[in-house]
Amino acid sequence: MLAISQRGIEMPASPIRKLVPYAEAAKKKGIKVYHLNIGQPDIETPKAILDAVRNSDFKVLEYSHSAGNESYRRKLVDYYKSVGITVNHQQIIVTTGGSEAIQFGFMACLDPGDEVIIPEPFYANYNGFAVAAGVKVVPITSRIENGFALPPIADFEARITPRTKAIVICNPNNPTGYLYSREEMEQLKELILKHQLYLFSDEAYREFCYSGEQVSAMHLTGVDEHVVIMDTISKRYSACGGRIGAFVTKNQQVLDAVMKFAQARLSPPSFAQIAGEAAIDLPADYFDTAKAEYRSRRDLIVKRLNAMEGVFCPNPGGAFYAMAKLPIDDADQFCQWLLEDFSYENQTVMLAPATGFYGTPGLGKQEVRLAYVLNLSDIDKAMDCLEAAIRQYPGKK
Amino acid sequence: MLAISQRGIEMPASPIRKLVPYAEAAKKKGIKVYHLNIGQPDIETPKAILDAVRNSDFKVLEYSHSAGNESYRRKLVDYYKSVGITVNHQQIIVTTGGSEAIQFGFMACLDPGDEVIIPEPFYANYNGFAVAAGVKVVPITSRIENGFALPPIADFEARITPRTKAIVICNPNNPTGYLYSREEMEQLKELILKHQLYLFSDEAYREFCYSGEQVSAMHLTGVDEHVVIMDTISKRYSACGGRIGAFVTKNQQVLDAVMKFAQARLSPPSFAQIAGEAAIDLPADYFDTAKAEYRSRRDLIVKRLNAMEGVFCPNPGGAFYAMAKLPIDDADQFCQWLLEDFSYENQTVMLAPATGFYGTPGLGKQEVRLAYVLNLSDIDKAMDCLEAAIRQYPGKK
Repeated sequence: MLAISQRGIEMPASPIRKLVPYAEAAKKKGIKVYHLNIGQPDIETPKAILDAVRNSDFKVLEYSHSAGNESYRRKLVDYYKSVGITVNHQQIIVTTGGSEAIQFGFMACLDPGDEVIIPEPFYANYNGFAVAAGVKVVPITSRIENGFALPPIADFEARITPRTKAIVICNPNNPTGYLYSREEMEQLKELILKHQLYLFSDEAYREFCYSGEQVSAMHLTGVDEHVVIMDTISKRYSACGGRIGAFVTKNQQVLDAVMKFAQARLSPPSFAQIAGEAAIDLPADYFDTAKAEYRSRRDLIVKRLNAMEGVFCPNPGGAFYAMAKLPIDDADQFCQWLLEDFSYENQTVMLAPATGFYGTPGLGKQEVRLAYVLNLSDIDKAMDCLEAAIRQYPGKK
Repeated sequence: MLAISQRGIEMPASPIRKLVPYAEAAKKKGIKVYHLNIGQPDIETPKAILDAVRNSDFKVLEYSHSAGNESYRRKLVDYYKSVGITVNHQQIIVTTGGSEAIQFGFMACLDPGDEVIIPEPFYANYNGFAVAAGVKVVPITSRIENGFALPPIADFEARITPRTKAIVICNPNNPTGYLYSREEMEQLKELILKHQLYLFSDEAYREFCYSGEQVSAMHLTGVDEHVVIMDTISKRYSACGGRIGAFVTKNQQVLDAVMKFAQARLSPPSFAQIAGEAAIDLPADYFDTAKAEYRSRRDLIVKRLNAMEGVFCPNPGGAFYAMAKLPIDDADQFCQWLLEDFSYENQTVMLAPATGFYGTPGLGKQEVRLAYVLNLSDIDKAMDCLEAAIRQYPGKK
């Protein structure tokens, strides 16, 4: 019988993209839609890194090494050194986006039926990669009231079973923007040592921290065998379409296993590796500019949100996301209503309902994620829309 | 306990790349190594498609649609039409290389424990994708004596179980170069209809056929729901590093399932989609030139091989590979010996032992795969080396 696989059935549809048809319909009606729903920054990709690709002069677009070009990996060593992480180029496997780094970790370290613990709300695609790998995601709830700080370690302990193999964190966090403190990272370290777990640390937003420096999982000492960094140039250099990331660990056994998966898919994309390599030579103040821009946006969006009646938005310490609790009955309905039935001065705003970021059913129904990836003026207008929408929404609570 | 997953252990190391350290050692000794071991063509990537990337003028390297740029998919409709395949752009999902198209098919259509039947010898990475998906590969032996023609359908019937979900073919074939006939394709059609199986058809080498036109799986009638094409621009335009392929089917249920996997990894690489789109506009005679070049190489390598004592090489009908039976005891030993202990006029040749392409243990021990990806002069010199090597090899049979 021709059928879809069970995992094909279980594979979650993207919670962010499911509203797209409604946005398209709104645009067809002539309504301007402010997209705060996805993490696609409007910040220009540094010209120098696009130029590196445009000025390339090779004749054959060849496969690269399965682990990525050695020249690029050697430059990445410098990059990591600049953020306090000491690795050599053989401890870096260049991946097709951060997505593939996560997939590699799940595939090489976890078997079907194994469990990973992830503080929720979490990046929704972890669910997809878990389904693909047959791995069970065990969510531990973090709470908007304390800005989505790390849940108590006792909550982790309570969920650890013989099948638990890893903890996944995203730091600073997508979708919450939370930046884990040194103390929290040290707590995680004790936990993974005690229970012999992997710590998969998604550090896509490393540079975008506003309340202090990021404490990388690789800044922790004595857990070299445990820590894997899943990395990407997508957000760092506004280069999402390059599809270049990195899998970084000092665990040789894990590297050896991941290399076999990397060889099977031959190589990461060649063009964008050129861009990634050029990015390491950007002036040291590159991130200052980008970070200052994101910080202004954060300040504006958080201020606007908290000024709305019944709205609470904790101040995110990093990344470019804010989570807000709204006085509404159902975030999915509300986000759809914003696109389908609402407009303010012929404009509306597209948000991501938080339900898709929770593993526990029923959570996040009053929360939305806002990606502050638009310029200040657009954010202001989008907030005007949201403010008016909350007043008008029939499902107000 | 920190451990590698069972599938990480089972994941096969690339049989093609395991000899690389010996090749590197030979080069360090000053020996010139002719690489006939991998399918990395030396043919220049068409300048027009590299220029399309180099002349691009976007400001932000954005995610594309998860299914690939619509403009590219619409142009691919034209491309497929030109090879007698009628599909619309919604039946095409642009993938990160042909590799990802294969992975998507395995993941969306097959569950752990399901079986796929593949004529052996076969492209070794099917093994890797099968391990990642928990799928069992059931090989059916094709034989060098008849040029690796499709094995008798009775052999397939004998291996079909309730867990059999798909048949995988590569046409024209890597590693054998065999081009399936219309009659063989019709036999496969009857088989998949009778047993309600998917037919996954890897058509990476579609344009490179020397003994007639390729019969695509999508040329078969009445099996629209069964057929999936796994495609790539890698070989077609000598653009292996682009990592752009395509997953093509008219089965809507499969498309819907695959889209969920595609959304989880966000998008295929943006730069090379520009190249892929430009490739559709290459002059109609582009393939004539490339094909004529490959045909001359095939003619030379087959002639040289068959002129060697004790060597048999069937004339491949397509792709750019030839399989040869050599008068040797062990192809793995021989290929290593070529690099480690042999040189002829300070040169040697790197080949792929055929053992890695067989699923049945013990098969292929006297066979090697030769990728005719070098120019005529280099192929000639490589054959001089091989001829001398066979005379000298201590494990001659």
